[in-house]
Amino acid sequence: MRIPFSNMADASWPECAKCLKGVILDLCGVLYDSGEGDGVAIPGSAAAVKKLKESDLQLRFCTNETQATREKFVAKLQRLGFDISVSEVFPPAPAAIAVLKERGLRPHLLVHNGLLNEFVGVDQTNPNCVIIGDAAENFSYKNLNEAFTVLIGLEKPVLFSLGQGRYYKETDGLKLDVGVYTKALEYACDLKAEVIGKPSPTFFQSVLNDMGLQPNEVLMIGDDLVNDVGGAQHCGMKGVQVRTGKYRPSDEKHPTVKADGTVDNLAQAVDMILSQRRR
Amino acid sequence: MRIPFSNMADASWPECAKCLKGVILDLCGVLYDSGEGDGVAIPGSAAAVKKLKESDLQLRFCTNETQATREKFVAKLQRLGFDISVSEVFPPAPAAIAVLKERGLRPHLLVHNGLLNEFVGVDQTNPNCVIIGDAAENFSYKNLNEAFTVLIGLEKPVLFSLGQGRYYKETDGLKLDVGVYTKALEYACDLKAEVIGKPSPTFFQSVLNDMGLQPNEVLMIGDDLVNDVGGAQHCGMKGVQVRTGKYRPSDEKHPTVKADGTVDNLAQAVDMILSQRRR
Repeated sequence: MRIPFSNMADASWPECAKCLKGVILDLCGVLYDSGEGDGVAIPGSAAAVKKLKESDLQLRFCTNETQATREKFVAKLQRLGFDISVSEVFPPAPAAIAVLKERGLRPHLLVHNGLLNEFVGVDQTNPNCVIIGDAAENFSYKNLNEAFTVLIGLEKPVLFSLGQGRYYKETDGLKLDVGVYTKALEYACDLKAEVIGKPSPTFFQSVLNDMGLQPNEVLMIGDDLVNDVGGAQHCGMKGVQVRTGKYRPSDEKHPTVKADGTVDNLAQAVDMILSQRRR
Repeated sequence: MRIPFSNMADASWPECAKCLKGVILDLCGVLYDSGEGDGVAIPGSAAAVKKLKESDLQLRFCTNETQATREKFVAKLQRLGFDISVSEVFPPAPAAIAVLKERGLRPHLLVHNGLLNEFVGVDQTNPNCVIIGDAAENFSYKNLNEAFTVLIGLEKPVLFSLGQGRYYKETDGLKLDVGVYTKALEYACDLKAEVIGKPSPTFFQSVLNDMGLQPNEVLMIGDDLVNDVGGAQHCGMKGVQVRTGKYRPSDEKHPTVKADGTVDNLAQAVDMILSQRRR
């Protein structure tokens, strides 16, 4: 489903910025690069966030981060110099908890230790679904077998995947992401996981609902062509890719996803947006 | 590709036994059940193997076992009372080594510690492919990342999967099999693995070559409907399923694979084959 544009239909980047009412930013690879400790802020990004906040545009942050609670990684971003608060940030875990409540499900968790606190208060007895996140070192043979055993024992197995990333880069090398282990469990149990997080349209829509805006009034800026840019476009938003984070030159020749614009970094994107709106 | 039958075209089970010149048996789930120590022989199987050996039929054993060297698991079967020798057994590892030689490839191994001795003498420096077997506890996050890093660093990544099983049963519960982790690496690297082992036609053909027989002269007996029975049928052999090992009643209503016959166990299959041949 691709929702038709209305007043932005033929406004290409950066002209479309004139009609915008809100901007959604990805975090890792746009605001900062992850790594040892807190990682490092991408030059100019903190100032760019500040400029957006001083403008008349609404601002939200949409991330597939699942290695820590919202409070923890927002605190990290604040230490890196960003003006950001927990209520502005949309990661998959709280969205997953809302789905569990809605459907009366009790999860078995295959997630990072840092995420467990998000699920305090969620009934996990006698689980009737599995939630898989970027569990990193917790992706042991034993833990995979446990999650599999829960799923295969259910009459109607339900698997929620917090994102569907393939891999990401850390200072000591490439690391496999949640999507890879989701595919493993999908094959083992002959099922299809429900993705909660980007690029799920439901997930983007929850951010739009919070802003009270229509998709054609909002621009997504991210470093992941498929999950950020393509996901946002699929919902009817514009999507701009930054040449930071996991950006690769081959993204600009991708067979199916074409960004509305490609910029060197967030600072450049924000300057282009705001200069359009001053005209 | 389904090779047409010739003289066995309309001979259904067990009548087809009259024209047979050879039988191929799966090991685990047909001869014995795995578990603590050596596992246990399935009642009547040792005697059934003996009867086949005393007949005019050729006999081979075709297995996706990759947790031990051929010598080790043949010794185990001998301890369980089976008349079986190493030269009669076809597991994936030696077939993989033949492929490596043929194509000048040097593997990075993600396999069970018990299998490493099969690869002594195989050049593993500066690897240009990955071989994945049923690595069990060796399927750690660290080891998966290592195999992934090798693959993603190759210009043309090559992944060999020793079988494509989903899971198997041990005394302490269900265990994820190699196919599950193959799917994980396939997704991570956006590639398709080459399967060495059942149900690969090349693998079955190597057994037929060793027997010097045509597919329509040979019957495969296994507990795995898709990999044993379906794989053999795909090569033009007949395939009979035993109701031991990983057999499940739902196999008899499988949407795509229909065994030529289903029997309670190997002993019954062999009695039916031999009684047909006596007529």
